[in-house]
Amino acid sequence: MSAAGAPEPIARLIQEFARLPGIGPRSAQRLAYHVLRAPEDEALALARALGDVKRRIVFCGACFNITEDDPCALCADEQRDRALICVVEEPLDVLVMERTGGYRGLYHVLHGALSPIEGVGPDQLRVRELAGRVEGGGVTEVIMATNPSLEGEATSMYLQRLLQPLGVRVTRLARGLPSGADIEYMDDLTLARALEGRQEL
Amino acid sequence: MSAAGAPEPIARLIQEFARLPGIGPRSAQRLAYHVLRAPEDEALALARALGDVKRRIVFCGACFNITEDDPCALCADEQRDRALICVVEEPLDVLVMERTGGYRGLYHVLHGALSPIEGVGPDQLRVRELAGRVEGGGVTEVIMATNPSLEGEATSMYLQRLLQPLGVRVTRLARGLPSGADIEYMDDLTLARALEGRQEL
Repeated sequence: MSAAGAPEPIARLIQEFARLPGIGPRSAQRLAYHVLRAPEDEALALARALGDVKRRIVFCGACFNITEDDPCALCADEQRDRALICVVEEPLDVLVMERTGGYRGLYHVLHGALSPIEGVGPDQLRVRELAGRVEGGGVTEVIMATNPSLEGEATSMYLQRLLQPLGVRVTRLARGLPSGADIEYMDDLTLARALEGRQEL
Repeated sequence: MSAAGAPEPIARLIQEFARLPGIGPRSAQRLAYHVLRAPEDEALALARALGDVKRRIVFCGACFNITEDDPCALCADEQRDRALICVVEEPLDVLVMERTGGYRGLYHVLHGALSPIEGVGPDQLRVRELAGRVEGGGVTEVIMATNPSLEGEATSMYLQRLLQPLGVRVTRLARGLPSGADIEYMDDLTLARALEGRQEL
């Protein structure tokens, strides 16, 4: 029995679950006891999936999205418009953009955003590789789809200053009211941005 | 790429995380992408902990608590009072009771509570084994520490009727106000129970 009183394998599983983001000690305990009761298959399927992600996932050498094959399916797709690059912070953002079905260009995954406080500078992100793709030619527009946060905005400003001299158009996603929103509950900054960017009806 | 657009190992990991209780599709996605970014050690430590729980944990043949050794450390402890059995629904409840430091008897883990709706009858719980321990002699009191829920109360009533004829004292944990509670926010049933069980000052 460990200090907490649970048998060692359970205490260790609780500890490992608690290292995951958003999982507190209580949830970790609940998850570990669930695993204990669950059929063996289910626990081992999760264990195997964890290992497979680490073994089989690589980064695409062109856009740095996650993939099983390099280049990734998006970069390898001849139907996509190679003159457009959409810059995102994380691989998950690519999925979300693709889900809209409204974009037919390529991507570039930075793997983060500039954050001097957390020690993330351009060298910690895939910035040099992005500049390399633009310098390589054939790219007419780079669309910034970084998060509308302090770090995301700073990253997009930095990249704009880096890329514009290379003779490419640099744009970013529109700011405004999210659809379905209630103006009464919108924050000041979103409203101010929506007002600045108001459009003719 | 799977239907959701993520590479197959990621899609599968998201799916496996989403099978855990209290983890919705969004959290599962967040967890999977966290694992992707996390050091390989961390992901494999969780995978190993999952396997170890399934391989190394058994049920104690006496009290049915989870343990690495049978009998468990509590049942094997000569210092504990063998005349007292505290009946709980789940192994986690044993830990919580032990944390209070106020109990020195043995335990019996039912592994659930009676619930006709979910098809849980006495045969699905460790009820026969509990009766066997009482019939075996030496037990003077059985303390019901099932949850103060509909199922827990029904289970404790059922066990009381089963065990009392065997000549043993059957008690249950007190009902009343939880310490630190605000009467203003107490539910009616808790207040009614606290009033019924009021004590002399």
